[in-house]
Amino acid sequence: MIYDLIVIGGGPGGYLASERAGAAGLKTLCIEKANVGGVCLNEGCIPSKTLLHAAKILDYAKNAKKYGVSVENATLDHAAVIKRKEKVVRTLVAGVKAKLKQNNVELVNGSGVIKGRSENGFVVAVADQEYTGQRLLIATGSVPAIPPIPGMKEGLQSGFCITSKEVLDLERVPESLVVIGGGVIGLEMASYYRSAGSNVTVIEMLDHIAGNTDKDISDILMKEYEKKGIVFHLSAKVVKINQDSVEYEKDGKTESVKADKVLVSVGRKADTAALGAESIGLELNRGFVKTDRRMRTNVAGVYACGDVTGEMLLAHVAYRQAEVCINNILGKNDVMRYNAVPSVIYTNPEVAGIGETEKTAKDKGIDAEAVVLSMRYSGRYVAEVEQGNGICKLIVDKKNQRLIGVHMIGSYASEIIYGVAPMIECEMRLEDIKQIIFPHPTVSEIIREGIFEF
Amino acid sequence: MIYDLIVIGGGPGGYLASERAGAAGLKTLCIEKANVGGVCLNEGCIPSKTLLHAAKILDYAKNAKKYGVSVENATLDHAAVIKRKEKVVRTLVAGVKAKLKQNNVELVNGSGVIKGRSENGFVVAVADQEYTGQRLLIATGSVPAIPPIPGMKEGLQSGFCITSKEVLDLERVPESLVVIGGGVIGLEMASYYRSAGSNVTVIEMLDHIAGNTDKDISDILMKEYEKKGIVFHLSAKVVKINQDSVEYEKDGKTESVKADKVLVSVGRKADTAALGAESIGLELNRGFVKTDRRMRTNVAGVYACGDVTGEMLLAHVAYRQAEVCINNILGKNDVMRYNAVPSVIYTNPEVAGIGETEKTAKDKGIDAEAVVLSMRYSGRYVAEVEQGNGICKLIVDKKNQRLIGVHMIGSYASEIIYGVAPMIECEMRLEDIKQIIFPHPTVSEIIREGIFEF
Repeated sequence: MIYDLIVIGGGPGGYLASERAGAAGLKTLCIEKANVGGVCLNEGCIPSKTLLHAAKILDYAKNAKKYGVSVENATLDHAAVIKRKEKVVRTLVAGVKAKLKQNNVELVNGSGVIKGRSENGFVVAVADQEYTGQRLLIATGSVPAIPPIPGMKEGLQSGFCITSKEVLDLERVPESLVVIGGGVIGLEMASYYRSAGSNVTVIEMLDHIAGNTDKDISDILMKEYEKKGIVFHLSAKVVKINQDSVEYEKDGKTESVKADKVLVSVGRKADTAALGAESIGLELNRGFVKTDRRMRTNVAGVYACGDVTGEMLLAHVAYRQAEVCINNILGKNDVMRYNAVPSVIYTNPEVAGIGETEKTAKDKGIDAEAVVLSMRYSGRYVAEVEQGNGICKLIVDKKNQRLIGVHMIGSYASEIIYGVAPMIECEMRLEDIKQIIFPHPTVSEIIREGIFEF
Repeated sequence: MIYDLIVIGGGPGGYLASERAGAAGLKTLCIEKANVGGVCLNEGCIPSKTLLHAAKILDYAKNAKKYGVSVENATLDHAAVIKRKEKVVRTLVAGVKAKLKQNNVELVNGSGVIKGRSENGFVVAVADQEYTGQRLLIATGSVPAIPPIPGMKEGLQSGFCITSKEVLDLERVPESLVVIGGGVIGLEMASYYRSAGSNVTVIEMLDHIAGNTDKDISDILMKEYEKKGIVFHLSAKVVKINQDSVEYEKDGKTESVKADKVLVSVGRKADTAALGAESIGLELNRGFVKTDRRMRTNVAGVYACGDVTGEMLLAHVAYRQAEVCINNILGKNDVMRYNAVPSVIYTNPEVAGIGETEKTAKDKGIDAEAVVLSMRYSGRYVAEVEQGNGICKLIVDKKNQRLIGVHMIGSYASEIIYGVAPMIECEMRLEDIKQIIFPHPTVSEIIREGIFEF
């Protein structure tokens, strides 16, 4: 059996590419070693959002009095939250499977290893079985990076140290949790477990949390977390994992913090170690598959999408890359752009951003101007958030008077941010955006308010 | 003292026009008979959202168990909610006042009555004081329409019947509330008072609730309200208000329903009775001021914006109309468009729509195609809403393959809908929208899902 397309990996990039390919009539095989949906659906985006939603409900209940609602004994039942999370994941995995079937995609469970070429195409083995595809799409995703810290290996073996996968399945709430790495994943889990009752400490090497997030916003976010009782050690480097503590260096001194569990979330690396990339001469860059803007690799007929490309490592980037792959396979011109990619931190408060920050604009030599507004310019925000200190920052290309970035912290940010994408993609000028009618009263209006500040 | 511009009315249209005029250097007078902010801020949008947010927090608490959170004795403290509402309104009114001052707008408290013309412009009296403006902007807004039903007058006098204003200030939750009129205002208050413990009955003349809302969506909304215990009588006409009951006709029979309070919310009429429109020959249409698409009236130099124009009666329409007025006064070409005006119902679940519905598209002779998706296509929706039955409907102009309307019921709809406005305004084709990257997992992704169904 020769396939038009073999997709290795059934995460967001792989399953969407398979669906689109199948829908377009390509004979498509999708190989997935675990569950379809990949990290995102099974041990990432979706499970974490289920947990964080429970934390949000708890937050609402605990703060209800400020809004005129009486609530007693609000507590989080962690076991029930985890159980519900599993149900949500099962539902959505079933949905993905159904869609693959509906689009005539063949699904094989196992690890796909590229064996080389035959006269009919690329040969991929899953255990003893070999499959041949005229084209290949690599969508094997990423795995948590494990830093080479003394004691880490033993910690992982004993279950004292865990990754972003296991942290979503803890049977009980650890009394104390140390999070190594203050990026998005670390913060979301720090936030949930703090709500669930853990004493949480975050150790971060940089002098700020939340990675590339706008610095003003990550500063506010950190203060909010601190109010909830999360402890941060910035510019701090973990140097040793002991049996029940983590040692770190800060300002030349070595300190130690006790922990029941340690979450290791210092980044992710490409899942290509067992891919067999060398068998077809596929070019990698520190493990990630190199692609051009049509998502083509250096090997004709081989494409890649998702985390394995090393570009932004976000499910929605994978989706779009998957479509670019399939469009190009189908002979339709389509290129990948990264100028309007939203990113979100789903804690309370929420953080969302899209496009350039002041820093990235400067790095690119764009003559940019920024405006920062308090979210309290939004009537709905005032109506719904007591003592809220959210902000919205807009970045404008001065030369063209075009909006090129928006970054916000506050309620609904996660659901508002997408609407900036068409503004950036359509290259709307400030004067054009001024004519857009935003519903009143909404928090989204803050963007409109900001536009009029330029 | 001769003003460049006199604005009669300090609601959303009037205060924003005044701000913009002041900022542009026009000597501007704003006349407001009550509080700046108008109905929207003082007795409409903002207070109602404050109440509904409390109801939402209560809803979350009551349903917390489904999400793994334990909560006991969740109750709504209506008096505390009202008190907080007043604080929110005071804060925002102060904000509007500060902005007017900052833009050098003179504010006069009182009813502005147009007296006629002098050689210097239009003369407007506030009590004994006369003011002259080279231009006039009518922004007097609207008042609740009171239907001529026997017993209504007496009911209003005794306080048995109330309007959308008084319903926001009830000292205690009425044991039973009858709402005459199932439009947006009636529904939002029905929903709040049901959450607060009232037995609520809605009587609506049409065969559906929520006015021009997409019919599939208003059907779902009604079912959701019914689950909460709200009783609806559709195609029913109120014929008499008694001392403690409301009589209505349905299917040729007269029925009666007991009530502690009756909310009369059957629509709004222009607030122009005491305006003095006739003194300058201003053309009205059933009380509303007639305007062209530059918001000019039939009298040169006289403009109008907001509810008083009779166009859609929404604060955000007033905002945009206000800007069109000021831009045209300043000699800048700007026209009002109504093709991408969002509208929202802020109950739980939320409803939001923008652009054409199937019905309006048909009425306009547009060859339109609709796609309806369950919100359960959104992973976040599944993660956050148990037994959710939300939908999203997209309307596309088949000829041009352009998105012309989106209508949705479900969580975050209120904050998502604005993002469709740039898509409609930029006349994006389906192929263009497919290239927009939506953040995953969000409910906003439902729009992306829908686009791919065409």
